[in-house]
Amino acid sequence: MGVLLGVDFGTLSARAVLVSAKDGEILGESSFSYPHGVLDRELPGGIALPADWALQHPNDYLLALRGAIAGALKAARLTPRNVVGLGIDFTSCTAVAADGEGVPLCLKAELQNRPHAYPKLWKHHAAQPQADRMTALARERGEPWLPLYGGRISSECLLPKALQVLEEDPEVYAAAELFIEAGDWMTFLLTGELGRNACMAGYRALWDGAYPSPEFFGALNPGFEGIEGKLQGAVLPLGSQAGQIGARGAAISGLLPGTPVAAAVLDAHAGMAAAGIAQTGKLLLVMGTSTCHLVLGDAQRAVPGICGAVKDGMIPGFYGFEAGQSCVGDAFSWFLQNCLPGELQREAEGRQISPHALLRERALGLLPGESGLLALDWWNGSRTPLIDGDLSGVLFGLSLRTRPEEIYRALIEGSAFGTRKIIENYRENGVAVSELIASGGIAHKDPMMMQIYADVCGLPLRVAQTRQGGALGAALFAAVASGEHGDLFAAMKAMVKPPTAEYRPVSRNHKLYGKLYAQYLRLHDLFGRGEDGAVKALRAISREAAALSKIRE
Amino acid sequence: MGVLLGVDFGTLSARAVLVSAKDGEILGESSFSYPHGVLDRELPGGIALPADWALQHPNDYLLALRGAIAGALKAARLTPRNVVGLGIDFTSCTAVAADGEGVPLCLKAELQNRPHAYPKLWKHHAAQPQADRMTALARERGEPWLPLYGGRISSECLLPKALQVLEEDPEVYAAAELFIEAGDWMTFLLTGELGRNACMAGYRALWDGAYPSPEFFGALNPGFEGIEGKLQGAVLPLGSQAGQIGARGAAISGLLPGTPVAAAVLDAHAGMAAAGIAQTGKLLLVMGTSTCHLVLGDAQRAVPGICGAVKDGMIPGFYGFEAGQSCVGDAFSWFLQNCLPGELQREAEGRQISPHALLRERALGLLPGESGLLALDWWNGSRTPLIDGDLSGVLFGLSLRTRPEEIYRALIEGSAFGTRKIIENYRENGVAVSELIASGGIAHKDPMMMQIYADVCGLPLRVAQTRQGGALGAALFAAVASGEHGDLFAAMKAMVKPPTAEYRPVSRNHKLYGKLYAQYLRLHDLFGRGEDGAVKALRAISREAAALSKIRE
Repeated sequence: MGVLLGVDFGTLSARAVLVSAKDGEILGESSFSYPHGVLDRELPGGIALPADWALQHPNDYLLALRGAIAGALKAARLTPRNVVGLGIDFTSCTAVAADGEGVPLCLKAELQNRPHAYPKLWKHHAAQPQADRMTALARERGEPWLPLYGGRISSECLLPKALQVLEEDPEVYAAAELFIEAGDWMTFLLTGELGRNACMAGYRALWDGAYPSPEFFGALNPGFEGIEGKLQGAVLPLGSQAGQIGARGAAISGLLPGTPVAAAVLDAHAGMAAAGIAQTGKLLLVMGTSTCHLVLGDAQRAVPGICGAVKDGMIPGFYGFEAGQSCVGDAFSWFLQNCLPGELQREAEGRQISPHALLRERALGLLPGESGLLALDWWNGSRTPLIDGDLSGVLFGLSLRTRPEEIYRALIEGSAFGTRKIIENYRENGVAVSELIASGGIAHKDPMMMQIYADVCGLPLRVAQTRQGGALGAALFAAVASGEHGDLFAAMKAMVKPPTAEYRPVSRNHKLYGKLYAQYLRLHDLFGRGEDGAVKALRAISREAAALSKIRE
Repeated sequence: MGVLLGVDFGTLSARAVLVSAKDGEILGESSFSYPHGVLDRELPGGIALPADWALQHPNDYLLALRGAIAGALKAARLTPRNVVGLGIDFTSCTAVAADGEGVPLCLKAELQNRPHAYPKLWKHHAAQPQADRMTALARERGEPWLPLYGGRISSECLLPKALQVLEEDPEVYAAAELFIEAGDWMTFLLTGELGRNACMAGYRALWDGAYPSPEFFGALNPGFEGIEGKLQGAVLPLGSQAGQIGARGAAISGLLPGTPVAAAVLDAHAGMAAAGIAQTGKLLLVMGTSTCHLVLGDAQRAVPGICGAVKDGMIPGFYGFEAGQSCVGDAFSWFLQNCLPGELQREAEGRQISPHALLRERALGLLPGESGLLALDWWNGSRTPLIDGDLSGVLFGLSLRTRPEEIYRALIEGSAFGTRKIIENYRENGVAVSELIASGGIAHKDPMMMQIYADVCGLPLRVAQTRQGGALGAALFAAVASGEHGDLFAAMKAMVKPPTAEYRPVSRNHKLYGKLYAQYLRLHDLFGRGEDGAVKALRAISREAAALSKIRE
């Protein structure tokens, strides 16, 4: 059997992984960081961006594709000739505005200083007003698809992002022949075939056999009625072939023309196959900058505040439910960049350990609740269950005795409480959760955090064997698309190893965390559901001050 | 005219200042840090202290007395012969448990490992349960003095601290022949005369011509009925002579026997005379680790949540009102020690500026509210108006864009909101406030903070000329006690210079801060007055976990 290539496009870099179709062995891998990273303060030309914006540069994706593939081949001592199939997973919705050939509008000289011409990264939250209007209208019209998206349209989805372009820069909107997921844009460039994968279309573009009606779009804004014309491309089931590498694809990837390319897949969702999950009840936590909470069900359910419930959206034959927290690893990175005292930084450097390891070492001895701290984990808004990008974080219980490692641990615990809330929300709405499987770098690197999650949730937690859930998942779909395996289940059986480390909840800790969680729950509802408007009012005052600040300048 | 010596005993050091009785000119000054600082984790022998404890070592006071006086004399090129009067101001209530000769119990070999044998610093908050019971009993009995203490007895007062000793270490209580303010203890050692100054007795020991009744004390705890026997010593009005330096006093101070010593005075309260305030409406902010809010009135008023309203307690002929915030400079120090990133620390070092100056530089350009942050300033509980040491701080509005200087500024703003709340509380209860006068090191060092206070409160703010409010105030009372001036007003007229820098509120900033303050007010009441119990529940959970943690050890 041959070698499959999975390329995982994350928030800050892309990673290429070469996998044996026979047994899933990793033969070589390589990652490549995006030179521009996330554009959240200004465009490359210096144009300032407002709060809540997050863009990327499309050339970064192309550089990373080529660089990561070349690196992986070199590491594996293989050549493009050995690659029998390619799969792509991508962050989503990362929305590219492009012309009919797939050229991103920001690459055109006349549009290079127009923020709306750049790809909007998944965590671009500035389309919140548009998302809110879509929700209100869908409620008013009783759109049957609304409950499948948790009852509220997220600003992270494709359509609010496209509507924001129309309303804030109509020229860019008019010039855009395509609004397309970056994953589908990539397979389009590679194969010359314009298609849309059913996973991203289902979870991020309200596609459920069809998009919402032109009447719905037109009621949002008359100019938006024809948006479906910019969503062209057949919707492809997971594991189907998007096409084969063409001339343009060979040039940008370094792969051979004719190599089969699978339909793209959402990065987190690819992790279900990679973790070997093909049954209900196992909640996959895909932990990175944010966390996705994925679980399979055998019936459609309307679960408030989830991101989507899509038939065949993750694993064929199941309803795939997606919930999420918008800020997990990002919060720890924020802490390290903005709150780590020089003394601890020097100690970590001197001992040649990571600051995370040092903070863990100091925080490990604390009992649940001992620090007196509690965090509402909204540093980047709330995805599930509140679907509200306008919320911000709160830290309760600060005192003169509070130490940095206590705040760090409180951030971890806050994220665990958010996960417990998501689990309870699933259960209350008929989706079973009886076990946790964690994947992503954090799951392998942070045993303290894994134990905290087991203790807070009161559930056993195992860690998925692979550290490359996205890329391995993409390779699994490539195995199907290229015919190396007959179906996804056969590919998983051959290529996926069972989870490793297991964390069991400690009863005393679970009990103490129960008391903290009771406070978390009440404060979550108090500030998150609008009973007390403080957290949202602060955001509004901040916007007002920022506007005044601009006048001053 | 001669030279007066004021010695100011602060939280971490003592400072001696030599002042000309003629015109208030500072002739020399010197400070001396307490070697043990604040004992809040363990005793010198290693005995661990629970949360909320804060002790000091009495030998530190004696070393600092001698060292600071010697340093000031040397700096002024003067000798003890030049000193015509000595005044002492001290933190309060800093409570010494001593034998009849004034020897602190912790200096006795058999008691040196008993936490209750050590002086309890003003910010020792572990007598909160005793303070709460005193409040409840006084309410029940309708004690007429309760409204003069804001309707609630603070755990920072003398009597809760003494009751805690009785209930937690009866042997130490029995051995204590005196529970005495450290200021009065010092004049006792210096003069051999046991007296109590009316200022500390009035504000910190419920003395209003008399102490509460033995029935009241006995109802708290039968063993406490005779506490007045341990409070012996005549109560001396401010400006009166406590005695003259005796043999023991000469040995510990280096001053000449026979030198007149004024009755001690509360450190903050001494600042009223030093700021030249002898009229109503001017609110003195004595800003240091904590802030005292002092104002004169011409009638007695019951103001909820204040620390005390005492006739002649600050300036003869006026009712002196005291309110306070328990954590101001302490919060900024906490931030520097626990939250200042290494990068900023290195930049400050490289540019040879203080980290405070660097943070100010970065925070100065922010508009009110722009950061989206809001702090409830309870890092060390709330003094006025809630009188609750069990509260802890809350930080709202954190996001991935939050920068260290924004948090630093939010801490300053939170303290300013706390001050505005105190001003409104005064006004609503008949005590006029029309102008702010700030004193203490921060007032001179931090123009950004002063402008924020003016903007938040919407009042003009001036800075008291002297940087040594406590010591100058003590010297002013020494001027009266030694007969250098006929009365305090004559001494103030000769020796106090008018305030310097003036900050006027900027209308746009005051308006923006008004919006933030509306949120602060609601959250203050929500969490501070028990409508939502989260903040206090976290403290309770923390205590429970700490207890479990001990069992584990």
